[in-house]
Amino acid sequence: MTGQVVALCGGVGGAKLAQGLGMALPPEELTIVVNTGDDFRHLGLCISPDLDSVIYALSGLSDAVRGWGRRDETWTFMEALKGLSGESWFQLGDGDLAMHVERTWRLAQGATLSEVTAHLCRALGIAIRVLPMSDDPVRTRLLTDEGWLDFQEYFVHRQCRPAVREFTFAGAETARAQTGALAALERRDLRAVIICPSNPFVSVEPILAVPGIRAAIQQSNAPVIAVTPIIGGKAIKGPAAKMMAELGLEVSAAAVARRYAGIIDGFVVDQADPMPESLPGHTFFRAATLMNSTDDRLQLARAVLQAADTLGAT
Amino acid sequence: MTGQVVALCGGVGGAKLAQGLGMALPPEELTIVVNTGDDFRHLGLCISPDLDSVIYALSGLSDAVRGWGRRDETWTFMEALKGLSGESWFQLGDGDLAMHVERTWRLAQGATLSEVTAHLCRALGIAIRVLPMSDDPVRTRLLTDEGWLDFQEYFVHRQCRPAVREFTFAGAETARAQTGALAALERRDLRAVIICPSNPFVSVEPILAVPGIRAAIQQSNAPVIAVTPIIGGKAIKGPAAKMMAELGLEVSAAAVARRYAGIIDGFVVDQADPMPESLPGHTFFRAATLMNSTDDRLQLARAVLQAADTLGAT
Repeated sequence: MTGQVVALCGGVGGAKLAQGLGMALPPEELTIVVNTGDDFRHLGLCISPDLDSVIYALSGLSDAVRGWGRRDETWTFMEALKGLSGESWFQLGDGDLAMHVERTWRLAQGATLSEVTAHLCRALGIAIRVLPMSDDPVRTRLLTDEGWLDFQEYFVHRQCRPAVREFTFAGAETARAQTGALAALERRDLRAVIICPSNPFVSVEPILAVPGIRAAIQQSNAPVIAVTPIIGGKAIKGPAAKMMAELGLEVSAAAVARRYAGIIDGFVVDQADPMPESLPGHTFFRAATLMNSTDDRLQLARAVLQAADTLGAT
Repeated sequence: MTGQVVALCGGVGGAKLAQGLGMALPPEELTIVVNTGDDFRHLGLCISPDLDSVIYALSGLSDAVRGWGRRDETWTFMEALKGLSGESWFQLGDGDLAMHVERTWRLAQGATLSEVTAHLCRALGIAIRVLPMSDDPVRTRLLTDEGWLDFQEYFVHRQCRPAVREFTFAGAETARAQTGALAALERRDLRAVIICPSNPFVSVEPILAVPGIRAAIQQSNAPVIAVTPIIGGKAIKGPAAKMMAELGLEVSAAAVARRYAGIIDGFVVDQADPMPESLPGHTFFRAATLMNSTDDRLQLARAVLQAADTLGAT
């Protein structure tokens, strides 16, 4: 089957499936729409962690061992910065810095985040369309038991310790969806919308909060399928499970599926988990969702595409 | 003898003597006024090459083998930047980047260059006052046989190849001299003003072009002594000799001394060079001016201070 596949994607977990989809599909059939809610300015640099995770995954530059950032990374900058009493809570690898410096410089020259992202992809040989959800700033903030925190303050500086109560995506109301992302969702040949195994609260929902994106997904006739970020009641990475518990939700794949009610048609749970009880409008699938190797990523991408095509055929 | 010593200083050569003076004098008796005419913005970063050379020399962070920049440096950033098709003509080491990022960030927050420099010195344990010649931007430009060039364009990008005809220090006319620098030159206990073995045209003359500095030096009763950057008709480092030839000047220590006429009382030539013919108002001294080891730097600093004290006693 052919047609356009649109993947909504957060950071590391999402980026792995994006990489699998990149292997499974010709580049012109894939558009990856990336969360920018955790973008922030640090030491004056414009940092887009999820875009970078996706770019590193697609260009083969990801560090497989550390699980984030760039492979063959060095840390001389951070050591020197500490020597200058600089802010050292956010780790910036020497190679990773090139992305931030180049992005900050191009944005300061008047380029949009989409233009900068396209340039970085081109330079790294990525033919797949990687699009920020918006060129306007949207900033995820969390209401915690210690008050409102910016995302990176919560995620990196406080290491997700404060308990979360509520999320807000500052700027989302007036942000304009990235034109190419909306256009991809409105294509007649849209084959599937895939919600990657990313954190629903702070990776996927910021994308859905950008005006027009949720509606475009709901109005499309294409199947919408999400992949669980929860296996056996635990998040593969990051605070998704902790957040679910703090929000009073059941920590399970099924609860993530319920969170996406009204958006998705299908949901992929891990093969190690039982098939959830059926939900109205949801078809459940099972697959190996743990993506350690690149082959795991390709296999999961194929399974998700097949599940979507099954839904599309009905 | 005690009293305040003020050193005017450019990049690497000047920084070596500054380091020697730092070893020879208690920190409260030394003020180093540094050229900022070759400061520039690159990839959005505020780079102050001469200030950094002085700071690296005084903190023991200089790279002795390469002759510039920071020791134990790594180059992952540059490699990654090249991979992004970024501008790679100016080498930025990973550790060196910490200085530029921290400086740029603090300047953007509203700090002056003097405040940033004081912070960097404090963080690196430097007790000596290191002052930019001005907090206002002064930019050295060169008229060459290929037209006007910014300093770093000439110095790094074009590797000093174009022949120079003329220099200008854009912004110097309205720049305010750094307050502490002027105050040091106006101290009653001023022991000596030392012009370090830096390039006269692009390291020392930008400092003298800042209103008030030349006058303060001329009005002081303290001896003013310069150290030759030319040995045996050659520059120890950099384009000083090439520039002298292109400007139609004799390439010699004596010609540098003549260039400083009206400013200096004494001039130190290298021990390998003959003592120049006497010039009205100039006393010549000879010393070992090549500073390979830290001991060489200390010995030259002592010789220069002794020469200054001889002049001061007359």
